[in-house]
Amino acid sequence: MKINHDIQLSDGKLKHFLNINNLPKSIIEDIINRAEEFHDNSKITKYTGKVVASLFFEPSTRTKTTFELATKKISSDFINIDIANSSTSKGESIIDMIKTIEAMKCNMFVVRHSVPGTAHFIAESVSSDIAVINAGDGSNEHPTQAMLDMFTIKKHKGSFEDLKISIVGDILHSRVAKSLIFALNTLGAKQINIVGPKKLIPDNYTEMNVKYFEDMSEGISYSDVIIMLRLQKERMHDALISLDTYYDEYGLNQSRMQLAKKDVIVMHPGPINRGVEIESSVADGPNSVILNQVSYGISVRMAIMSILFDNHHAS
Amino acid sequence: MKINHDIQLSDGKLKHFLNINNLPKSIIEDIINRAEEFHDNSKITKYTGKVVASLFFEPSTRTKTTFELATKKISSDFINIDIANSSTSKGESIIDMIKTIEAMKCNMFVVRHSVPGTAHFIAESVSSDIAVINAGDGSNEHPTQAMLDMFTIKKHKGSFEDLKISIVGDILHSRVAKSLIFALNTLGAKQINIVGPKKLIPDNYTEMNVKYFEDMSEGISYSDVIIMLRLQKERMHDALISLDTYYDEYGLNQSRMQLAKKDVIVMHPGPINRGVEIESSVADGPNSVILNQVSYGISVRMAIMSILFDNHHAS
Amino acid sequence: MKINHDIQLSDGKLKHFLNINNLPKSIIEDIINRAEEFHDNSKITKYTGKVVASLFFEPSTRTKTTFELATKKISSDFINIDIANSSTSKGESIIDMIKTIEAMKCNMFVVRHSVPGTAHFIAESVSSDIAVINAGDGSNEHPTQAMLDMFTIKKHKGSFEDLKISIVGDILHSRVAKSLIFALNTLGAKQINIVGPKKLIPDNYTEMNVKYFEDMSEGISYSDVIIMLRLQKERMHDALISLDTYYDEYGLNQSRMQLAKKDVIVMHPGPINRGVEIESSVADGPNSVILNQVSYGISVRMAIMSILFDNHHAS
Repeated sequence: MKINHDIQLSDGKLKHFLNINNLPKSIIEDIINRAEEFHDNSKITKYTGKVVASLFFEPSTRTKTTFELATKKISSDFINIDIANSSTSKGESIIDMIKTIEAMKCNMFVVRHSVPGTAHFIAESVSSDIAVINAGDGSNEHPTQAMLDMFTIKKHKGSFEDLKISIVGDILHSRVAKSLIFALNTLGAKQINIVGPKKLIPDNYTEMNVKYFEDMSEGISYSDVIIMLRLQKERMHDALISLDTYYDEYGLNQSRMQLAKKDVIVMHPGPINRGVEIESSVADGPNSVILNQVSYGISVRMAIMSILFDNHHAS
Repeated sequence: MKINHDIQLSDGKLKHFLNINNLPKSIIEDIINRAEEFHDNSKITKYTGKVVASLFFEPSTRTKTTFELATKKISSDFINIDIANSSTSKGESIIDMIKTIEAMKCNMFVVRHSVPGTAHFIAESVSSDIAVINAGDGSNEHPTQAMLDMFTIKKHKGSFEDLKISIVGDILHSRVAKSLIFALNTLGAKQINIVGPKKLIPDNYTEMNVKYFEDMSEGISYSDVIIMLRLQKERMHDALISLDTYYDEYGLNQSRMQLAKKDVIVMHPGPINRGVEIESSVADGPNSVILNQVSYGISVRMAIMSILFDNHHAS
Repeated sequence: MKINHDIQLSDGKLKHFLNINNLPKSIIEDIINRAEEFHDNSKITKYTGKVVASLFFEPSTRTKTTFELATKKISSDFINIDIANSSTSKGESIIDMIKTIEAMKCNMFVVRHSVPGTAHFIAESVSSDIAVINAGDGSNEHPTQAMLDMFTIKKHKGSFEDLKISIVGDILHSRVAKSLIFALNTLGAKQINIVGPKKLIPDNYTEMNVKYFEDMSEGISYSDVIIMLRLQKERMHDALISLDTYYDEYGLNQSRMQLAKKDVIVMHPGPINRGVEIESSVADGPNSVILNQVSYGISVRMAIMSILFDNHHAS
């Protein structure tokens, strides 16, 4: 399916939040600034009466719970559509399902689906007063995760221009990595390294304004930020290496940490596999901001939801 | 089980909402009028602190979600009783379960169960300050669906007296059809046609003040309203016809639409089976009000819930 | 795992609610008094914006629903962590899961787990601004159940000093029994009888300040309060007796009721097994306060949650 990366914008305003690809720098900065306002996670009442429908066609605890919490923090109502028992499981098309939920006067859809572009397809299908958020579309993008990662870097590093950032793991299959690379390029990061076995690197990486390192030590050398990706164990056979070999070659351990800058921050979208992609003492160590990322995830999602509601209200 | 169709009334006031059978015209009209007040689905705070317990012994997405949304729109709390993991699955009787939830100070039960009369049985068992709504009791009734259908007809046709209304499909097994026929008769519809294979028509249809047509073209001729029922595919062998034959004989397609009035409205309780009981272009066409029905379902359920809370409060 | 029974207190204030063991009488009385304030179950708004995360590693309808209702009655938000689909089921450790939910800025965890001490372990692990409630930890304790039982006795009997209280059933495996015996001793009940087959009595019962009766008639003779435990049918083979024999020997029936005081109250944590541990006419009879216990469960949990929030706020 051809994905229209511009459908999230209308007259330069964010109407849906679907991809970091093609998203203007000013909007990314707006989100970061708005998230800062919500940083203490206090409940606000401005969006009382709005209804957010959660459509997770793939299971999720962390992302879904964070969206539920963010919805409640802005005093909106959260409706979980039980996909497993829904009519789509009885043969109803996704579009009929969407149209039905739209008719129920929900104001926002949060969508996770294994097929790239599903959230875009839904955004193109719903009426203009509904906002759609992409909570992960297959191997394509996971833009709210990237936004909370940008917020994390901003909080801990202040700005992006001088940063050397290393993303380590299965770049090929990671929607998080794709969104991250778009965001970091847009925000003007000095250098983006991708690190991992050749088999887990996309062929077109040269178009992505990144440097590729097969060797972990070189890849994280003098980095300001290291972002470890979650290892999808079932995909390791694609790379023809064992979990043990992977940890030997790409696990972030204490000795490798010495190669990065002293004030490097270590990030991970979670849940972490201790002893698989990261050593426990690093995950829990002073440079780790992994749990901060979770907290920021609430503020950032509150920010994105409130901006979308504001932009729909204004139109 | 003998069902007491009058238990929903006390001194002429609606205390439960269980069946359209025996429901006075004035109450049906009250519900329609109240739903009109809620038509914009704005959130109201009058019923803050009330608790609605959802007891769905049969799976449902559409009806249950609509009740949850309606509950939130009137600012009451919605509690979903997880039947699959509940004590009834460990041998607790339904009455002990009901008494326990009653003791939890829930104010309203919304019940779906495969056994006809279950909601009535519960209404007879609970204390007088609790309201029970029937969200479908086996093949008996689905009264909130019928009420939203009445609201739909009223919105689009203004009144019932001059209308010719055709209900098409498996009349025999449909609780929606039963509730519809009661409601349309009470509201004084001019002519009610039922249309479908003989095997899917109840033996006692002559007592229902309807006209039966085995032939679809005759049955929808000059109709003002066509209500298509959802085909329960697993019951087609009862009628000894294949899905293809069914669609040929009873599918609502564009050419058959020419037989009805030009301003006919097409209704369906959803989810629709495209190409089984209805042609896609008809379901999505200008005469279809299928998605309007979904929207009205929120207002109508808000109306029924608020009337019941008011009547319990007054007593 | 060694359980620290004092971790719930800090400077004499209740910061978590984990066990009745070692809980000062004054705090038990505070909870009873606070529950009395919430007795009409009216909604209060003082705790708006607080978030309660429910972590039920064992299934539950009654306890979990009661916590959800209590949370809503104090206007806090309730988040259900879906353990079955959570990352712990994919190998994430419970401590990583807890740290993640903590990072989501939840203010309270309600935990049920099959391993004794899990709630204590979590309380030791979370930051000092989070309160943990034990909703059942294996065969150890079920302290909120014991508190609602104390509230029930207080409401119906006024005080504890003159009471003879009989607890009947599988004392050995019952976390409810353990919490009850601690609470009744702390509150100064005159006599606590435990009644059941020898095989279902803990070896160390002599240290518990109770009297053991193998014979039911002796055990409930002249009792003011009889607390029947739920029979865990799967454990009956441990006692080498059949369900029928059990009912013959330990079932609470009408004739045995004559042995207790005329104004005895009959309690049961629910759900009851009619004809297994209790005769239907006794469960539904005038001396039964089983459904009252359910109602009180809301007030008592509102009380415990609000005290914990107050104590965390004050610090």
